[in-house]
Amino acid sequence: MSELNSSIQPLRWQAGKLVMLDQRRLPLEQVWLEFESCGDVALAIRQMVVRGAPAIGIAAAYAVVLASRYAWAKKGTIWKQAMTRPLRDLAVSRPTAVNLQWAINHMQRRIDALPNNQQPEAVLLDAAKAIHDADITDNKTMGRLGAELIQPGSTVLTHCNAGALATGGFGTALGVIRQAHSEGKISRVYVDETRPWLQGARLTAWELMRDHIPCVLQADLAAAALLATGKVDWIIVGADRIAANGDVANKIGTYGLAVLAQYHQVKMMVVAPTATIDWQCESGSRIPIEQRERREVTHIGQHRHAPYEVEISNPAFDVTPAELITAIVTETGVVKSPSAVTMQSLRERRNTI
Amino acid sequence: MSELNSSIQPLRWQAGKLVMLDQRRLPLEQVWLEFESCGDVALAIRQMVVRGAPAIGIAAAYAVVLASRYAWAKKGTIWKQAMTRPLRDLAVSRPTAVNLQWAINHMQRRIDALPNNQQPEAVLLDAAKAIHDADITDNKTMGRLGAELIQPGSTVLTHCNAGALATGGFGTALGVIRQAHSEGKISRVYVDETRPWLQGARLTAWELMRDHIPCVLQADLAAAALLATGKVDWIIVGADRIAANGDVANKIGTYGLAVLAQYHQVKMMVVAPTATIDWQCESGSRIPIEQRERREVTHIGQHRHAPYEVEISNPAFDVTPAELITAIVTETGVVKSPSAVTMQSLRERRNTI
Repeated sequence: MSELNSSIQPLRWQAGKLVMLDQRRLPLEQVWLEFESCGDVALAIRQMVVRGAPAIGIAAAYAVVLASRYAWAKKGTIWKQAMTRPLRDLAVSRPTAVNLQWAINHMQRRIDALPNNQQPEAVLLDAAKAIHDADITDNKTMGRLGAELIQPGSTVLTHCNAGALATGGFGTALGVIRQAHSEGKISRVYVDETRPWLQGARLTAWELMRDHIPCVLQADLAAAALLATGKVDWIIVGADRIAANGDVANKIGTYGLAVLAQYHQVKMMVVAPTATIDWQCESGSRIPIEQRERREVTHIGQHRHAPYEVEISNPAFDVTPAELITAIVTETGVVKSPSAVTMQSLRERRNTI
Repeated sequence: MSELNSSIQPLRWQAGKLVMLDQRRLPLEQVWLEFESCGDVALAIRQMVVRGAPAIGIAAAYAVVLASRYAWAKKGTIWKQAMTRPLRDLAVSRPTAVNLQWAINHMQRRIDALPNNQQPEAVLLDAAKAIHDADITDNKTMGRLGAELIQPGSTVLTHCNAGALATGGFGTALGVIRQAHSEGKISRVYVDETRPWLQGARLTAWELMRDHIPCVLQADLAAAALLATGKVDWIIVGADRIAANGDVANKIGTYGLAVLAQYHQVKMMVVAPTATIDWQCESGSRIPIEQRERREVTHIGQHRHAPYEVEISNPAFDVTPAELITAIVTETGVVKSPSAVTMQSLRERRNTI
């Protein structure tokens, strides 16, 4: 049996540059952008050229490689000092996804282990590629573990994009959906359009159609009436940060879906690599929630549809308490009924690249 | 004390024509369209130049006047027969709002009472204007009755547009909000943008800003995290059809908000005239739900953001079971804890123009 893959890779290292698919322009255009500096990658993360917690982590790892090239060229043996500021700016490019800090910390340990008089790029590039490769491998492991929870003939609902585009190239939530679909277990995927940024309409629907997985797009709050029909077996989503007690920060709307899932006795699966778990964070109430710009709500593309100067609330994420989650699927194992106690099983098996 | 009014009137009879504000183009442009035929009004209802159950009813009443003018001019004393087809086409212009059929039935009774040899326009115009005037009066009555339920210092959330734009000119849900705000009881109104048609972003935010009522616009599913903060006291919405047992069909997403309201112990108020109640309809499961065109989900304005040919689910309404509703406010009284039994109190007091 040939290995299951996605046809989509959102970022790659090519000819000494980081090349990323501009996710702001999907699905109407497929535009690849090239990056040669850490600062430009930080800006691309902030502006959501690349998004999705695991993909942000991978992009950040490659950004560290670019920073080291510049620092070595400009500063020679004091290159490590010259990296402090770019890495600090990179770390704050988005506040919620913990994979970003995880990847920078991982790269920092490699930097610390290098001598001052060694050109760092080659070693750091190997480390970044290892993060990238491990992400895809881990996605596939999660895909298999998550698919085991799904019964044949299931219909699922997903929110936002936790797909190939959000990761190294296979997907967390969509990785499970890809795997379960390939096993004949999933007949249909409902896709919430996911306002305000429309990741569902623009990215998830595109990704599923490209890989020939039957999908139906709907407005976010149409999910409630759909769940009331009893047609949906699982809601499957990714995560931007998971607290030590199993509370999950994910795209705004996820919490509402989790409440609706419980009310309708629909199961709720969160799929994310262990790099998404912030063991320092005791509970979801301590996860910082990014407020994004008003324009995401008032405009679509260049076109405003809301009144000029209307006040906006635009939190990018919300927090779903662990007790509303049926299972958290990671590459090191599945935690059913997540809690501070049950999450410990993962900590002991924690993945290290 | 001067009477509280809205500055907005979505439709008026002027110089023998029905003049309507084109709600598709708000808030960017205020364009008034003139109608001289029943068929054009039916098309305008279908295309949502005018929307909102009470406003549709009023537009339909004026459309009957236009139909009678044409029928009398073309057919003379057999004008009543000539009206059968245009009124049938008008009745099916949208399927869910029962006010449409209610207004046509009301006008039909006036038609039936007229002699064949009398020019019908003047009498029918009086009847249509009476429906229009009564709607505004009833809105104000509902505003007072609903505001009595609200405590000073309240924050409320509304979905879709049940405002001046959706009615003869004051509003049902927004009528209550207008009245309670004028009494100093409401400090802030959160407005769901209301996908796919963006009635909240385009119409409600515009209407509230024009009348200087503080409002905050948000993505629909952001409501869940907002409710979790405990900041919201009431969710207040309109209705497109209410079944005899108190089940409410309203804009898609209302049902989800009602479930979220119950989970967070937030109260849920439905504001609608008795013309919205379909006493022939035993329960919400018998209310027909309009599926609207795919373009509403895939495009905003002229701009597509979803993949070409993606499958769409686009129900315009959902049904909220009576048990999730704290109170239904009508012009003839308030029904707390609506049910088949408690709704009977309204039936006995049923309003007749």
